[in-house]
Amino acid sequence: MKKESSKMQEMLEDFGKGIVTQVQKEKNPSFNTVSRTKSNIHYDEKGGFLKLGNTKEERSFINVAQTKRFMQTIAIADKCHKFVKENLHTSIRGLFYQLKYSLGEDIDENIFNEQSESNPLIEDLEVALGIRREDLHLNANRKGVLIGNMKIKDYFGNEEQEIDVSKLGRSGWGIPSDVDNDIEFVDVKAKYVLVVEKDALWQRLNEDGFWKKENAILISPQGQAARGTRRIIRKLADMGLPVYVFNDCDAWGWYIYWTIKTGSINLAYIGRDIATPEARFIGVTMSDLEKYDFLNTMTMKANEVDIKRAQEMLGYPWINRHREWVDELNKVIKTKKKLEEDTLQGPRLTFVDDYVREKIKNREFLP
Amino acid sequence: MKKESSKMQEMLEDFGKGIVTQVQKEKNPSFNTVSRTKSNIHYDEKGGFLKLGNTKEERSFINVAQTKRFMQTIAIADKCHKFVKENLHTSIRGLFYQLKYSLGEDIDENIFNEQSESNPLIEDLEVALGIRREDLHLNANRKGVLIGNMKIKDYFGNEEQEIDVSKLGRSGWGIPSDVDNDIEFVDVKAKYVLVVEKDALWQRLNEDGFWKKENAILISPQGQAARGTRRIIRKLADMGLPVYVFNDCDAWGWYIYWTIKTGSINLAYIGRDIATPEARFIGVTMSDLEKYDFLNTMTMKANEVDIKRAQEMLGYPWINRHREWVDELNKVIKTKKKLEEDTLQGPRLTFVDDYVREKIKNREFLP
Repeated sequence: MKKESSKMQEMLEDFGKGIVTQVQKEKNPSFNTVSRTKSNIHYDEKGGFLKLGNTKEERSFINVAQTKRFMQTIAIADKCHKFVKENLHTSIRGLFYQLKYSLGEDIDENIFNEQSESNPLIEDLEVALGIRREDLHLNANRKGVLIGNMKIKDYFGNEEQEIDVSKLGRSGWGIPSDVDNDIEFVDVKAKYVLVVEKDALWQRLNEDGFWKKENAILISPQGQAARGTRRIIRKLADMGLPVYVFNDCDAWGWYIYWTIKTGSINLAYIGRDIATPEARFIGVTMSDLEKYDFLNTMTMKANEVDIKRAQEMLGYPWINRHREWVDELNKVIKTKKKLEEDTLQGPRLTFVDDYVREKIKNREFLP
Repeated sequence: MKKESSKMQEMLEDFGKGIVTQVQKEKNPSFNTVSRTKSNIHYDEKGGFLKLGNTKEERSFINVAQTKRFMQTIAIADKCHKFVKENLHTSIRGLFYQLKYSLGEDIDENIFNEQSESNPLIEDLEVALGIRREDLHLNANRKGVLIGNMKIKDYFGNEEQEIDVSKLGRSGWGIPSDVDNDIEFVDVKAKYVLVVEKDALWQRLNEDGFWKKENAILISPQGQAARGTRRIIRKLADMGLPVYVFNDCDAWGWYIYWTIKTGSINLAYIGRDIATPEARFIGVTMSDLEKYDFLNTMTMKANEVDIKRAQEMLGYPWINRHREWVDELNKVIKTKKKLEEDTLQGPRLTFVDDYVREKIKNREFLP
């Protein structure tokens, strides 16, 4: 939706005024945020996603351990206010370089020396204000591609452009970092969303016109899903579209699925906004080895790291509550095998289309 | 250009017929390729790119060291012939999985067991036939994004789509693996090409409408340039557009430039087709530290790997023939400093536009 950028600007101004008022009242300037430590990250059983608990944390100026970070956070808020006002965007690295400056003529210290200092303070601000960094005009790395029967209105750089995503040939639409502000999805006519881990398989399905025949929206996160890709999957699910995920058969491919479904520990502070608990996993599964005989010549040896990752996943309560997933993970650990989704091109290139279609038709999903 | 796919099909059929004829004449079936070993990789001084020399190599069937690989190469040619005939594409991994099959009912051996066996044989075939793997319907990984005043005709999956690359908002056009077959560039109205190493900076310049104001084509390889991206830069240079490259100031950023300019050792067998010797480097340079005072607070420590890479680059004759580059590399080694292109957002986000514009205006390039 076309953003009222004045809203974010006001929010940041109110935040600043709040601090100033505290100073004027001779109070210790402070603001509240929520703890992002592991002990405050919970799986929401009812909702089906990872989120923060209720442990509040105060950031205050007159506190030896916090003074510098407090000042730094205010400097970040100030810069972001400027970006929003000017309607310009940058990366979190770009923000860092704007603050890798000396505090002033007589002070021989930079506001920031390392990006590892500024990144967590951006998160502090996101949580304190109840917004996402994209609202502050800070772009995350973008990755991921989409094609299907829908249109996009992109209000970008003072222009409005309508992009027909069904007319982008072999390339598809590159999913941007921010799919909320200044962007609108219209004429979404598809029946479901298919997420394919690997770009090579996305290209294969695109070439076959799979999304046209099935009236689906075809997304590839191109590996682990970036924030923008997770967010767009959430938004499409909110429009009522079922979401199916088709990944490699190993702990990594499966974890990419779980990240899309429940969100991740690192981004638990964004919670449901980037989680799609409604998502279902159509494969590749270890059980496919019993169903599709040719796959048995296609397996690879799961190495130590794969096995260790599978064991870790067995420990996550949001995964081990599903008997089907416990079975699958145990099969990896027991047989020490894994399988790529690319193998489904083995019998013929278009076999992958049939595999996906049949799984969806028979509702052969994992939860 | 719309491909006459029958041409590649014929070429593969002629290749096969040649082998059959040799067998029928009771000759040892063989074909010629060119050696891709380091000793046969040369820098073409006149042309300004890396290419193979004249050392021919014969691949023949009745040769204990080659029998298996000969058979494997024929199997690859056979599969590719099928892909071309069916007008379907896959990745080199997809091809491998089509050949990870048993030779026959009584033979307990797969044609291929590891992709590391099939990859070099694809290159053999590319060199023997004088074509590129994309012509064989084998896609390489795609990476890279483009925006600017041009249109693309994409003959894809039995449809023809015209894509106006100036109307793709914040996303731009994802550069495909194959920019030669079934694809056409029309109405290229830009005055020059600007290549920007990092996607974050590409996004910055895109938001500012840099390419509109300058009438430029804005490309980001998003790190090291993929085959498709190198190839499209070559094609745009062939249309008479000057090519400027804007990368990080370290051995990696600089090597990305050199790969675009002269091609790379690994892909020397494709030679000029993916090299753009006309390219010029506009920055970031170590000399910028003398010109832009603020950059001196922005440097990072070059670590051992950076220094080692710079020393290696000093050893490449196509680099050390340029006094300017020797100076730059020596500065890195002496000062142990490096600098990201992101730092140019330091003074204000749009400073990066001015930096690029000024460098081009003053023709402040490195060769």
